[in-house]
Amino acid sequence: MSKKVVLGFSGGLDTSFCVKYFTEEKGYEVHSIIVNTGGFTKDELKHIEHHAYALGVKTHKAVEAEESYYNSIIKYLVFGNVLKNNTYPLSVSAERLIQALHISDYVQELNADAVAHGSTGAGNDQVRFDMIFNIMIPGVEIITPIRDMKLSREAEVEFLKSKNVDMNFAKSVYSINKGLWGTSVGGKETLSSYGMLPEEAWPTQVTQTGTEEIKLHFEEGELTEVNGEYFETPVKAIQYLQSVVGPYGIGRDIHIGDTIIGIKGRVGFEAAAPMVILKAHHALEKHVLTKWQLNWKDQLAIFYGNWLHEGQIMDPVMRDIEAFLQNTQKNVTGDVFVQLKPYHFHIIGIDSKFDLMSAKFGKYGEMNTGWTGDDVRGFSKIFGNQTMIWHQVKDSTKES
Amino acid sequence: MSKKVVLGFSGGLDTSFCVKYFTEEKGYEVHSIIVNTGGFTKDELKHIEHHAYALGVKTHKAVEAEESYYNSIIKYLVFGNVLKNNTYPLSVSAERLIQALHISDYVQELNADAVAHGSTGAGNDQVRFDMIFNIMIPGVEIITPIRDMKLSREAEVEFLKSKNVDMNFAKSVYSINKGLWGTSVGGKETLSSYGMLPEEAWPTQVTQTGTEEIKLHFEEGELTEVNGEYFETPVKAIQYLQSVVGPYGIGRDIHIGDTIIGIKGRVGFEAAAPMVILKAHHALEKHVLTKWQLNWKDQLAIFYGNWLHEGQIMDPVMRDIEAFLQNTQKNVTGDVFVQLKPYHFHIIGIDSKFDLMSAKFGKYGEMNTGWTGDDVRGFSKIFGNQTMIWHQVKDSTKES
Amino acid sequence: MSKKVVLGFSGGLDTSFCVKYFTEEKGYEVHSIIVNTGGFTKDELKHIEHHAYALGVKTHKAVEAEESYYNSIIKYLVFGNVLKNNTYPLSVSAERLIQALHISDYVQELNADAVAHGSTGAGNDQVRFDMIFNIMIPGVEIITPIRDMKLSREAEVEFLKSKNVDMNFAKSVYSINKGLWGTSVGGKETLSSYGMLPEEAWPTQVTQTGTEEIKLHFEEGELTEVNGEYFETPVKAIQYLQSVVGPYGIGRDIHIGDTIIGIKGRVGFEAAAPMVILKAHHALEKHVLTKWQLNWKDQLAIFYGNWLHEGQIMDPVMRDIEAFLQNTQKNVTGDVFVQLKPYHFHIIGIDSKFDLMSAKFGKYGEMNTGWTGDDVRGFSKIFGNQTMIWHQVKDSTKES
Amino acid sequence: MSKKVVLGFSGGLDTSFCVKYFTEEKGYEVHSIIVNTGGFTKDELKHIEHHAYALGVKTHKAVEAEESYYNSIIKYLVFGNVLKNNTYPLSVSAERLIQALHISDYVQELNADAVAHGSTGAGNDQVRFDMIFNIMIPGVEIITPIRDMKLSREAEVEFLKSKNVDMNFAKSVYSINKGLWGTSVGGKETLSSYGMLPEEAWPTQVTQTGTEEIKLHFEEGELTEVNGEYFETPVKAIQYLQSVVGPYGIGRDIHIGDTIIGIKGRVGFEAAAPMVILKAHHALEKHVLTKWQLNWKDQLAIFYGNWLHEGQIMDPVMRDIEAFLQNTQKNVTGDVFVQLKPYHFHIIGIDSKFDLMSAKFGKYGEMNTGWTGDDVRGFSKIFGNQTMIWHQVKDSTKES
Repeated sequence: MSKKVVLGFSGGLDTSFCVKYFTEEKGYEVHSIIVNTGGFTKDELKHIEHHAYALGVKTHKAVEAEESYYNSIIKYLVFGNVLKNNTYPLSVSAERLIQALHISDYVQELNADAVAHGSTGAGNDQVRFDMIFNIMIPGVEIITPIRDMKLSREAEVEFLKSKNVDMNFAKSVYSINKGLWGTSVGGKETLSSYGMLPEEAWPTQVTQTGTEEIKLHFEEGELTEVNGEYFETPVKAIQYLQSVVGPYGIGRDIHIGDTIIGIKGRVGFEAAAPMVILKAHHALEKHVLTKWQLNWKDQLAIFYGNWLHEGQIMDPVMRDIEAFLQNTQKNVTGDVFVQLKPYHFHIIGIDSKFDLMSAKFGKYGEMNTGWTGDDVRGFSKIFGNQTMIWHQVKDSTKES
Repeated sequence: MSKKVVLGFSGGLDTSFCVKYFTEEKGYEVHSIIVNTGGFTKDELKHIEHHAYALGVKTHKAVEAEESYYNSIIKYLVFGNVLKNNTYPLSVSAERLIQALHISDYVQELNADAVAHGSTGAGNDQVRFDMIFNIMIPGVEIITPIRDMKLSREAEVEFLKSKNVDMNFAKSVYSINKGLWGTSVGGKETLSSYGMLPEEAWPTQVTQTGTEEIKLHFEEGELTEVNGEYFETPVKAIQYLQSVVGPYGIGRDIHIGDTIIGIKGRVGFEAAAPMVILKAHHALEKHVLTKWQLNWKDQLAIFYGNWLHEGQIMDPVMRDIEAFLQNTQKNVTGDVFVQLKPYHFHIIGIDSKFDLMSAKFGKYGEMNTGWTGDDVRGFSKIFGNQTMIWHQVKDSTKES
Repeated sequence: MSKKVVLGFSGGLDTSFCVKYFTEEKGYEVHSIIVNTGGFTKDELKHIEHHAYALGVKTHKAVEAEESYYNSIIKYLVFGNVLKNNTYPLSVSAERLIQALHISDYVQELNADAVAHGSTGAGNDQVRFDMIFNIMIPGVEIITPIRDMKLSREAEVEFLKSKNVDMNFAKSVYSINKGLWGTSVGGKETLSSYGMLPEEAWPTQVTQTGTEEIKLHFEEGELTEVNGEYFETPVKAIQYLQSVVGPYGIGRDIHIGDTIIGIKGRVGFEAAAPMVILKAHHALEKHVLTKWQLNWKDQLAIFYGNWLHEGQIMDPVMRDIEAFLQNTQKNVTGDVFVQLKPYHFHIIGIDSKFDLMSAKFGKYGEMNTGWTGDDVRGFSKIFGNQTMIWHQVKDSTKES
Repeated sequence: MSKKVVLGFSGGLDTSFCVKYFTEEKGYEVHSIIVNTGGFTKDELKHIEHHAYALGVKTHKAVEAEESYYNSIIKYLVFGNVLKNNTYPLSVSAERLIQALHISDYVQELNADAVAHGSTGAGNDQVRFDMIFNIMIPGVEIITPIRDMKLSREAEVEFLKSKNVDMNFAKSVYSINKGLWGTSVGGKETLSSYGMLPEEAWPTQVTQTGTEEIKLHFEEGELTEVNGEYFETPVKAIQYLQSVVGPYGIGRDIHIGDTIIGIKGRVGFEAAAPMVILKAHHALEKHVLTKWQLNWKDQLAIFYGNWLHEGQIMDPVMRDIEAFLQNTQKNVTGDVFVQLKPYHFHIIGIDSKFDLMSAKFGKYGEMNTGWTGDDVRGFSKIFGNQTMIWHQVKDSTKES
């Protein structure tokens, strides 16, 4: 009986090669699966399905994963205001993990002998796929022909042409990966340490040139309304927000980061809705959380983002941190006002019943009835007491 | 003999009141001191000196503190890429501390009986002044008439007019505090949780409307050149950079933060050169530092900024953190390219001999000779091994 | 109408003074309350009640607080393996907070005008009481005669004798504070930086001279059984364990710590059951938690213990950390074996179905089937890749 | 020309096999090297040298590495009070790294083609050796026959006997690894999750049954004197201290830890001098450092120990942390008094001119002149101000 392989399939050159190679050279039974994290339209998915069957898969499956993606990952990235190295919303990193998890489920469902991915040996994705498969479906063979055979693009094209495959073999100038939490863009400018993507390389072109103020409503840390309109799920709110803020060219940047395999990598990205949500959410938190809540959220979120980036989403410590983050969100409810302008935006203010900046408890810079000058005088004395002693002791050692 | 008081003096209403109150109502001998952290021109300082003597001080001293300010504080804020709550470069917080330290030195030099500051009982500055004085000149009496008498602005004006003081009593619509590391702006928009400062409220008006690319050179973490021009000290480089980037309206924002006394406070600020420097410096670091250097710098810098903000600059732990930060900067040498546009800027890239993103060691997304696919396969297996075991153990407890 | 005051009452000299001073000098109506956190027997509580009424309180109340103390604080100290400065189980710190919270409830119940505590101005307790009262019953006057009048012991005795109070005025050589989570002991040896308490100063004398092995059972992090005997609540288990391990003289030490007010303080303590529980619990965790769970638990627990010590139990960040800690305990179930000897003990091993040290997944030091030597070779190459690159880059800068 | 291999050589079965296998089966030219980190006597080293030559090495070298070991690693473990998982002084982990570094130097000196180690594929050491070699001598082939061929002990013995090798082939009941910073002991009791090593298994037998007080002197964090005797280097002081405290049976424990490769491993160890030094050093620090110095030292030291354990000593972040730790030690000078008893010890006190617990600045629990009750009252109000506001705001949301 032929080996049953589940293949993560995008319809691109690498995974098209895999199908043909598995079916015709290896005699495998291939079951392709595409996990849509928000980057594909219905038409595109249909096209990919046709392509898969044309290549010779036994079955093809498309999983609509936006909701599970949001609920298991993006939600916590928002709670933690996670930007890797203070820059990158982890658009692609997070996607790969949810894709690998859905693929693992499918392998178990089909009781497949093997699982395959089309990653090369040079990036982060291979580690994410490998690791999730090792953890969730241990014992299932992982097959990675592109990585193992170190095939060049040209060799793959030649092979597919030799098999009479009909697809677009033209190499696009920029490689794009689109999803609910942002779109990455790689091109010649990102291959070295210098260079900004040209205007035309950005997937979303700037069509808004004026100024606009929008209102986001968060309910316990989750985006539920935009401009007063309520959405069934935060996924819908994010998608709508993206349609509003994307055309301003907001959230474009280039990230230089540490890959899991130790080299530095540079990637362009546009993430309009994610950046607006993260900054708006953070502004609301700065009004409703205490100093040490903000502090520990920062420290835990740095780790959470890095560990997620490195594919470690299934480490139970991630559940523990999520429990922490979830608990911090109880009062993160309210409106945030955002001013949009071409290429940038400002947080204008917030309105929340949990706002700790309340005139009742003293206005910054103005006297009030909650405490006296003597209270602060006493506070300052005690607050600096140990350091005062330290300096006195130090001075005394010099004298003697 | 009359009590000898050193007074931190800005020439504004509160400290003008103090001079008159001390000399005429209390019979103190007043020695005023102004510590210039970059906010005053020579003319302004001369004007303040005249005003001090006119009010009746015995002596007046102006300290040019930009260099000591930079060397003892700003340098480390750059090394740590410090932005409080990921927003505010601590423009004012840092200034107060260097001012308090210079005032303390002066108190010791004059062997004064007391030290005075004009802070009210409602903000951060009182704690910073009190605490530094308690630590550096313990036993010296701290006199704070504005805080103690809870005087209204009107009462102060009336008192000064009754003493025939000639000064501008008009209240400005926006209160401005300018220094080397940024300018804070308070006004009616910052007194509540909603509101953005209007265009005219910003001290630096936007006069640049085009696009410009500039080059910053860092030497072991310190800005030494702008556009190829070398500056004697980083202070000069910062000042020059400010003249270039300020007119783009870059680095404007509103910060909502935790005051030392527990309330939330909101303040506008513009900090064009600081924001460009911090982001450029961080970009360079992302190319030359290892993953864990970046991680620990972040964690320590969050604390460093917060503790500085709370006036705790003299805690010896700050010296320890500075030793850490200094050590991280050995390779932070190179050029950073920044694209300026009205209201925003982009980091375009860097050039450094210490750049870890080197084609020699593998390009992100492309195969190389440094490692094989099997190496990564092995890595992925071992890297996820413990989590794999954890899930296996968990599954086994369900079965039994 | 006379002022209604709730007084935290221990029956000692300071609080006895307070009753007499309030009733006879101030004309207050005094409602005394004692919150028993495990340090008082029924007889002692009855004696204290008689004493309170004899002194002239209007009402007296005793609160049995062991269960609420455990559930709101001790439980999390166990989850976090909290030892302040790696030494002290926070025996007294935690007690004061639960006492202050119960007193606050009582103030609200009685709708009292004021609340009083007998702390001096030199220790931690005053801050804990003040702060909890400020937070939980803001606006209620806090009265602290011992602190305000800086009374000497002798003056208090004289005052009470002048009022014909009949009580034991003899000063004990060692001041003892006993509770469910340990007993503190202060004496002349702890007043300076050198000195160990003599054998007779320890409240629990050593009567066990042999060796004994005991078995503790934890259920999701909580002690539920000792030597196979199940206890209704962890409080009962702790009390029983204390009766077993106390006579071995285990858990005695001297802690030198940072007081909230900035000075260093030294205190002896014995905490036999707490130390055995903490070390046993930690050993179990080391078998069932992942590396990063252990790491983050450590980091959060350091802060949790310090912040609790400083009286900040009501900061909502403490709830967030508790949510984290609670979530980590899901698999902390199993038996821990402890060998008791005079003055010390050893953890002998554990037995848990969640034990990650399972022969199934490879034995330390022995080959297994889970991975190959080549996997580790690949892992080592990738795991050190960035540091390898860093050193190569550094070397290359020297050559040029 | 035959391949020139440098072999890390201990004289044990595995590395003896390597020599014979390399020379006779592979035709390599073998240069053996043993790096003594304190575990070998001069006689043992001489015996190992004879054995090496008898086996057929071309050259043999012994490196006395105690001083470099101390200066590059142990010193910082003391500064950081590093105990992995609060238990294990990293005795073996640290040794392997300094050994690998010396071996790397030797490879460069000899310009060898390859480097070999005798580790199996099941433990931590293989990763440490591989990684240091990859980093320090990239491109040099790493040969690991024991790991690659998965040889059993029996197969190795048979092979060596077939080559007429004369050595002791008896398997010892306990495997011992001795060094300056402790001795590890593995045996059947450590192979499962339950079991304590029997008395006779511990390398140092207990011959002291009484009580003794000793005095350690630290100079900027380094042990320089024991009982008033000054030692040329801290290494000599450690060795002398070990001779004093070892016979008390102090510092014996079993550690259950996370291996680098993800499994849990259990190992017995005795580390009398290290445990006494670490606890004495920590006690001194608690007297002379500020609260936040202690706090950050703890946080950084947890990471430092873990990262060292995982072989990452060459990551430049380790140098940054060392700079931090070094800076914290400026005042860590003074005497520490330790009471020794069989199996345990107590820190009795300290004497230091930098002691912050000085009667001059207020005694814990006694009033003083440095501050007033009102100062603390004010401090408590402000210190709890934000949490008070948080609770007020929360209550207000319930009312409405």
